[in-house]
Amino acid sequence: MVLEKINQPNDIKSLTDEELKILASEIREFLIEKISVTGGHLASNLGVVELTMALHLALDLPKDKIIWDVGHQSYTHKLLTGRREGFDGLRKYGGMSGFPKRKESECDCFDTGHSSTSISAGLGYALAREITGEDYKVVSVIGDGALTGGMAFEALNNAARLKSNFIIILNDNNMSISENVGGLSSYLAGFRTADAYLDLKLNVLNSLNKMPYGEKMVSKIRKTKSGIKQLLIPGMFFEEMGIVYLGPVDGGNLHGIVKLLREASHIDGPVLIHVMTHKGAGYAPAERHPARFHGTEPFDIETGLPKNPRVKANYTDIFSTVMRKLGDRDEKVVAVTAAMTDGTGLKRFHNMFPERFFDVGIAEQHAVTFAAGLAAAGLKPIFAVYSSFLQRAYDQILHDVCIQNLPVVFAIDRAGLVGSDGETHQGIFDISYLSSIPNMTIMAPKNKWELSDMIKYAVNFGTPVAVRYPRGEAYDGLKEYRAPISIGKCEWIYRESGIALFALGSMVKTAVAVRDALKAEGYPCSIINARFAKPLDEDALRYITEHHKVIVTMEENVISGGFGEHVTEFYNNENCKDIRIVNIAIPDEYVEHGNVELLRKEVGLDADTIIARTIEAYQNVTE
Amino acid sequence: MVLEKINQPNDIKSLTDEELKILASEIREFLIEKISVTGGHLASNLGVVELTMALHLALDLPKDKIIWDVGHQSYTHKLLTGRREGFDGLRKYGGMSGFPKRKESECDCFDTGHSSTSISAGLGYALAREITGEDYKVVSVIGDGALTGGMAFEALNNAARLKSNFIIILNDNNMSISENVGGLSSYLAGFRTADAYLDLKLNVLNSLNKMPYGEKMVSKIRKTKSGIKQLLIPGMFFEEMGIVYLGPVDGGNLHGIVKLLREASHIDGPVLIHVMTHKGAGYAPAERHPARFHGTEPFDIETGLPKNPRVKANYTDIFSTVMRKLGDRDEKVVAVTAAMTDGTGLKRFHNMFPERFFDVGIAEQHAVTFAAGLAAAGLKPIFAVYSSFLQRAYDQILHDVCIQNLPVVFAIDRAGLVGSDGETHQGIFDISYLSSIPNMTIMAPKNKWELSDMIKYAVNFGTPVAVRYPRGEAYDGLKEYRAPISIGKCEWIYRESGIALFALGSMVKTAVAVRDALKAEGYPCSIINARFAKPLDEDALRYITEHHKVIVTMEENVISGGFGEHVTEFYNNENCKDIRIVNIAIPDEYVEHGNVELLRKEVGLDADTIIARTIEAYQNVTE
Repeated sequence: MVLEKINQPNDIKSLTDEELKILASEIREFLIEKISVTGGHLASNLGVVELTMALHLALDLPKDKIIWDVGHQSYTHKLLTGRREGFDGLRKYGGMSGFPKRKESECDCFDTGHSSTSISAGLGYALAREITGEDYKVVSVIGDGALTGGMAFEALNNAARLKSNFIIILNDNNMSISENVGGLSSYLAGFRTADAYLDLKLNVLNSLNKMPYGEKMVSKIRKTKSGIKQLLIPGMFFEEMGIVYLGPVDGGNLHGIVKLLREASHIDGPVLIHVMTHKGAGYAPAERHPARFHGTEPFDIETGLPKNPRVKANYTDIFSTVMRKLGDRDEKVVAVTAAMTDGTGLKRFHNMFPERFFDVGIAEQHAVTFAAGLAAAGLKPIFAVYSSFLQRAYDQILHDVCIQNLPVVFAIDRAGLVGSDGETHQGIFDISYLSSIPNMTIMAPKNKWELSDMIKYAVNFGTPVAVRYPRGEAYDGLKEYRAPISIGKCEWIYRESGIALFALGSMVKTAVAVRDALKAEGYPCSIINARFAKPLDEDALRYITEHHKVIVTMEENVISGGFGEHVTEFYNNENCKDIRIVNIAIPDEYVEHGNVELLRKEVGLDADTIIARTIEAYQNVTE
Repeated sequence: MVLEKINQPNDIKSLTDEELKILASEIREFLIEKISVTGGHLASNLGVVELTMALHLALDLPKDKIIWDVGHQSYTHKLLTGRREGFDGLRKYGGMSGFPKRKESECDCFDTGHSSTSISAGLGYALAREITGEDYKVVSVIGDGALTGGMAFEALNNAARLKSNFIIILNDNNMSISENVGGLSSYLAGFRTADAYLDLKLNVLNSLNKMPYGEKMVSKIRKTKSGIKQLLIPGMFFEEMGIVYLGPVDGGNLHGIVKLLREASHIDGPVLIHVMTHKGAGYAPAERHPARFHGTEPFDIETGLPKNPRVKANYTDIFSTVMRKLGDRDEKVVAVTAAMTDGTGLKRFHNMFPERFFDVGIAEQHAVTFAAGLAAAGLKPIFAVYSSFLQRAYDQILHDVCIQNLPVVFAIDRAGLVGSDGETHQGIFDISYLSSIPNMTIMAPKNKWELSDMIKYAVNFGTPVAVRYPRGEAYDGLKEYRAPISIGKCEWIYRESGIALFALGSMVKTAVAVRDALKAEGYPCSIINARFAKPLDEDALRYITEHHKVIVTMEENVISGGFGEHVTEFYNNENCKDIRIVNIAIPDEYVEHGNVELLRKEVGLDADTIIARTIEAYQNVTE
């Protein structure tokens, strides 16, 4: 096997052309085989095999710097930098990350995870090199989807101004995670299809050449820095900003890409190389269903079907159903997503109400203020988004939605620990960053029916409101508890004296397990489903102190600025010293990738830890 | 006076051409006169007098919608919609806001304050109109500076896709607040100066016309949607995205702008009208010094000089001085600003170390990740930024700086109440949104010397660190207290038993006044300068409980997720019930514009309120 010859950076450089061809197909086989077992990002990685090989042929790692935008397409890069063994533990607790990690390899120079950061980071490296007088190349690899994120544009704009030597690879697969959208996308698509347009360019050029003084004019045009050059080259969008455009080149053309990379190295200032790749290239099921094979669970290689088909509905499915119903009932209901139609469960809404559905591209900031505009104009917008991606729009929530107190609903999926994607994707900050914003209301459902009830409630709430719910299977216990939702009111599940488990959202399920164990040991125990992280149910909190000695707040969010701290603060303001408060939350640290159950144990959100802490507190106060 | 005829929307439409000319100059006189007394935004407003008049002539308000990006240029709009009387109370507590406010007029359809939001909000209105079947025009007015903000690009991209009728006015004054930067800016500047370039375009066009089949080709070119059209029109950057470009037109050409607005109304889909305005137009001192007259204090109309020249240094000056020193001492120190070179005090650093200074444009997201790249490459970047604008980069701080634990320094100016700019600019959330981020350290200086010490300490700190300090005059008391900064350690100012005033940053000054009053009434009182909002000085907090009955935390930040809540949480975790905790902070609400002293009283941060709350708590525990 050629792949076995690749054990450290630059090993690839000693391969023959024949071996390089074999390597490309061995890498594809390797990735398909490994990911079919571990799960992970497949389609994007299959698309950049030759591109990554070309980078490793043209560059000198770790001296030169490659920054992978988003980073889930860095598997071939990991293979080529001596991490083949890591793939058995890919995205597992303690194992290799699915993203670039500085602490994993000196060939990973910048950690990524969220979209559109690579040009900014690469530009930082490029300018630092000028200041320190070092000598290395910097290449940022960004997808066409990620390029729609505003910060990528901010960085392009700045790169054009700073004029530092810096290479941007536009990895153009005409998709973000699913279909790409927006003006830039149709602009790029033009390069693929507009033979007629390129013909016309050549036509004009040839005609000019034939004119008297034509040659002189063409030479003048070639030299000019501005507008007329688009006669000769595509990519004027970038050229107009001051970035040299090279390409397009086919993503399978290894030597073509290497050639452009070498050419780019000799150009002064920022250069963009446009590479046309194909998501899933070399594996038919992934080519046919790139969105499904974006991030995949373990699958059967033969058929491409999941090995462990889901049996139970997850929260996203529930959201999908309720959105369909709401769309039917109320023509003012509109849905917004930032390139996550499938992931957030809006596909059905999109199909049924296309004119009331908006996929704005990877553009969370715009999504929120766009929703604010829709709301200001009298509609009922719902922005469905992952918790960690909504971080991008913190200012827009605070500044554009909440100051004006506009009725935008935030349907926050993947709130809590998400598992194998790791630090960058854990949805564990939203309660904190949303709680500090005035006029914001925050809910979290205990089970699948409550998610449905809360979304229905939220859509007519009239002011900014967030509903957060976790990734994965929806809890279907406690079906019989379905009291109507009422602003800032909790729901009593079990009412006893002694210990009060005051649990938010996903933690109600855990509270049931905790209570069962406590009851078995003879401890009296209430469960209160908090429902609202903000505002708190102050009456209930007062009542709790009268009948309980310990209150245990439970949330799947960091402790700092979270639900538990607000309960503590409430009791402090009430000057209530009669109750011991135990705050169960994620400590002040990032949480790595791994199985969610393991992670819960690691951060102390598992039933055993909670039981132990509760008993300890209860014994302290009753001794 | 013609201006007196303008008492409600659309009054302007009954004026003659002659009267319109007079009106324009009367508006300028009015604005200069009023702002010379109240202070406010002058240069930008003088630049858009005719543009605003044109909008009011071509549109039908309040039915049609105008969204003012940033919004500080909306003074003429306020004048033309019946708010002339409001200018005497402009930006004063209880008076008229300096920004558009929905609650102030039905002609203000969307509140603004931060940059780059108007296209998103306008697009929301435009799409809502399609869904509800209403009939109104939507116009967003955005400056060329604001256009460099990434969310504006996200919105343009989406506008191009959605194809809704929607007009964007590019108010191009070749500045953001000071000089504009970046690739887009030089692209736009091309239109101003490149007569040669436009000549060349015409040349090519004429040559083509003279060729056999040339006319046919030109007609083909005129019809084509793509690249070749730039032969005929500038603005291909926008046209390439799918947005029709009209202009450029001179910003003083009232009828020219009206004509383009009418033309734009007849075009299907998004249209951008490029208007070339001049900041400060019509008032010589503002034309000469547009940055100084961006937001101005009261000034003398004759000379343009401030009426009340500053005597004492403000915190920005101190920062400016220490940055110069640091730049001198350490070649690894680099400074980054997002279009706020003057405002953040980096001008001197810029002048002395131009190669280590980066103004990235209005692009806070990029600024932070760019700084992360600089830090990853071994430099010591300092991002100087206003508190409320840093909200834009919450995700980048969390995701690009703190996960990798990179040594980026955040020098956060305008942290706390800022006064007359109001809700959108109050820097009262940073402790909350930064505290919940792992690996982040947060400091706040008590006085001018401590700011200097903290910045010096921060620059060699080695991990992410923020130093927050308020707008305005630097406190020069407590000069004799200058113990070396040490991670997570507070500083004792007065040590007595009884009451502990645990004050952060700007509140130490207030604590001195509070203590003086308490002492006068016989209450024993310590003052502890917290220095660090994160991490807390746990040893000191434990010590405090042993010698005090009441601890009063004091911060200029919202209560939720702030410094005080973390102190409360600490004591709760310690199960310490022996001390009464009083948290002085801003309640969970937005704070309007007005004099800072008045605002402090309003939110309970003034000495009187703190004294009363402290005495009440102390009496409770000692009774």
